[in-house]
Amino acid sequence: MRTYLDCIPCFIKSAIEMARLVDGNEIRHKEIVDDVARLIPEFSLGCSPPEMARMIYKAMARRYGDIDFYKNIKKQSNRAAMALYPRLKEKVRTSQDRLLTAVEIAIAGNVIDYAAKNTLNIEKEIEKIFTKDFNHINKTVFDYEAFKAELDKSKRILYLADNAGEIVFDRVFIEEIPFDKDIILAVRDKPVINDALIEDAQECGLDKRAKVMSSGVDAPGTVLKYCSKEFIETYKSADIIISKGQGNYEALSQERENIFFLFRAKCPVIARHAQVALGDIVLKSLKMCGRVSQGISNPLFNTGMLKPD
Amino acid sequence: MRTYLDCIPCFIKSAIEMARLVDGNEIRHKEIVDDVARLIPEFSLGCSPPEMARMIYKAMARRYGDIDFYKNIKKQSNRAAMALYPRLKEKVRTSQDRLLTAVEIAIAGNVIDYAAKNTLNIEKEIEKIFTKDFNHINKTVFDYEAFKAELDKSKRILYLADNAGEIVFDRVFIEEIPFDKDIILAVRDKPVINDALIEDAQECGLDKRAKVMSSGVDAPGTVLKYCSKEFIETYKSADIIISKGQGNYEALSQERENIFFLFRAKCPVIARHAQVALGDIVLKSLKMCGRVSQGISNPLFNTGMLKPD
Repeated sequence: MRTYLDCIPCFIKSAIEMARLVDGNEIRHKEIVDDVARLIPEFSLGCSPPEMARMIYKAMARRYGDIDFYKNIKKQSNRAAMALYPRLKEKVRTSQDRLLTAVEIAIAGNVIDYAAKNTLNIEKEIEKIFTKDFNHINKTVFDYEAFKAELDKSKRILYLADNAGEIVFDRVFIEEIPFDKDIILAVRDKPVINDALIEDAQECGLDKRAKVMSSGVDAPGTVLKYCSKEFIETYKSADIIISKGQGNYEALSQERENIFFLFRAKCPVIARHAQVALGDIVLKSLKMCGRVSQGISNPLFNTGMLKPD
Repeated sequence: MRTYLDCIPCFIKSAIEMARLVDGNEIRHKEIVDDVARLIPEFSLGCSPPEMARMIYKAMARRYGDIDFYKNIKKQSNRAAMALYPRLKEKVRTSQDRLLTAVEIAIAGNVIDYAAKNTLNIEKEIEKIFTKDFNHINKTVFDYEAFKAELDKSKRILYLADNAGEIVFDRVFIEEIPFDKDIILAVRDKPVINDALIEDAQECGLDKRAKVMSSGVDAPGTVLKYCSKEFIETYKSADIIISKGQGNYEALSQERENIFFLFRAKCPVIARHAQVALGDIVLKSLKMCGRVSQGISNPLFNTGMLKPD
């Protein structure tokens, strides 16, 4: 997915939020905002939002050094989600369609992202996910039958993780995948927002079922051109790719592999691009839908400045 | 009120919204966003948001010329509000405290601003205002008794208007002010967002009761240093100033005159500064409260970069 103009205010908002996690020094925060503002004219709307976010992260690192802004929040999310793990397992165990419930749980967990970034009460948000009846959440695009069929015939599964905390919900899902299948879980290489790292996957016990690896990427989405050679080989050889979260959707929606995107549509631009309503839980197959829609009509395509994604 | 970092993403959002009102040319919209981005490092957080908005407006005029972005929306707002005028009058006529109801109507009308800028259904929003019971809206800061007392003893009233459409609600209010008092209604000098101009005041019949004048200002708030000499004389000689809307609050919250601010707190930064909850209807007296609070704690004050407001 390319970047839309509406993403730009969000980039600045995100930089302010990150800076505030470090200290209360507003002079420094303004300098960060100025740095980001200076980058904007360099931005091409043809790039995906995670590529832009990566540039912003690099600008922030020049001011703050290579720090892990969301470290505490990630630990807190992991702990809160792990406390819920037995109840999530029980929910799956007592459901009529275990795989379906597990998929829904994994997608519902994607809301942690928002809770963490908006420093809401993570415990409370997770509790809400648990008590919410999934039947009441809108599913405009939910290719479950196709997903199930593809999963059945796949031997090698690549699972692209999203955020810390949320990966506990992913764990519940991958534990429902039959044992004769290989699962590789790919996480980010370096701290970026609240995205999961290898240490988070281990802390939340995902390494018990999946082989955990770094994608080599330092953007908040699996931008292939920044991935490691090792990861690209895994990516190319996977029978099915399960891509979790908005960031991975933004990075990969224009690809051609057998990808299923699982996310909660928390952003109006992404919701529009994926042709779903804001708040929907989405299970979207590239293979079944053909290429994803261009979403917002875009005069840049006509000028050759952008390629449709 | 000074500008907070959280205002900056909103400035960009607002520029995108305005550009989209003109055409669907995204290349041009990106150029506008780039112009605004280049201004950000020049911004001093010591200035008020309407001063910043004025700079942005000037940048937009360099690309688009001196056009009236919200002209159609303003006309639509005026028409929709005028259609409601008889019912607003009836509401006042049948109320127990006519002045109080009129004040509440004037403040409730302030929501049109948001509706217009977000191109919501203005008719529907105005209808909602009308049906909403004012007793159910939070009033953390509502200095009505003080206001009534000050109004009683004032001879010369300066009313600072806010948006088109909304001024119909202001009309209902000023028509409740006894005839022995002089009312001067000040509007913006040039088109800026959806703010009311002399033509809007005339269109909505405010000139029947008040003397309508331009403040000389081309910012979305009565920033005194950009006002005309004639307006400043009126401002200084008024016994009471009724300041409508968030923009005028932002511009004047640090002044020392006998000002009463009437607005709906639609922005979290302003709500925090005014020490009210988001969504509150506010009637705030500078005279009664002393100086308004600084709101968000601010390290820039310690460095001498900012003066507390």
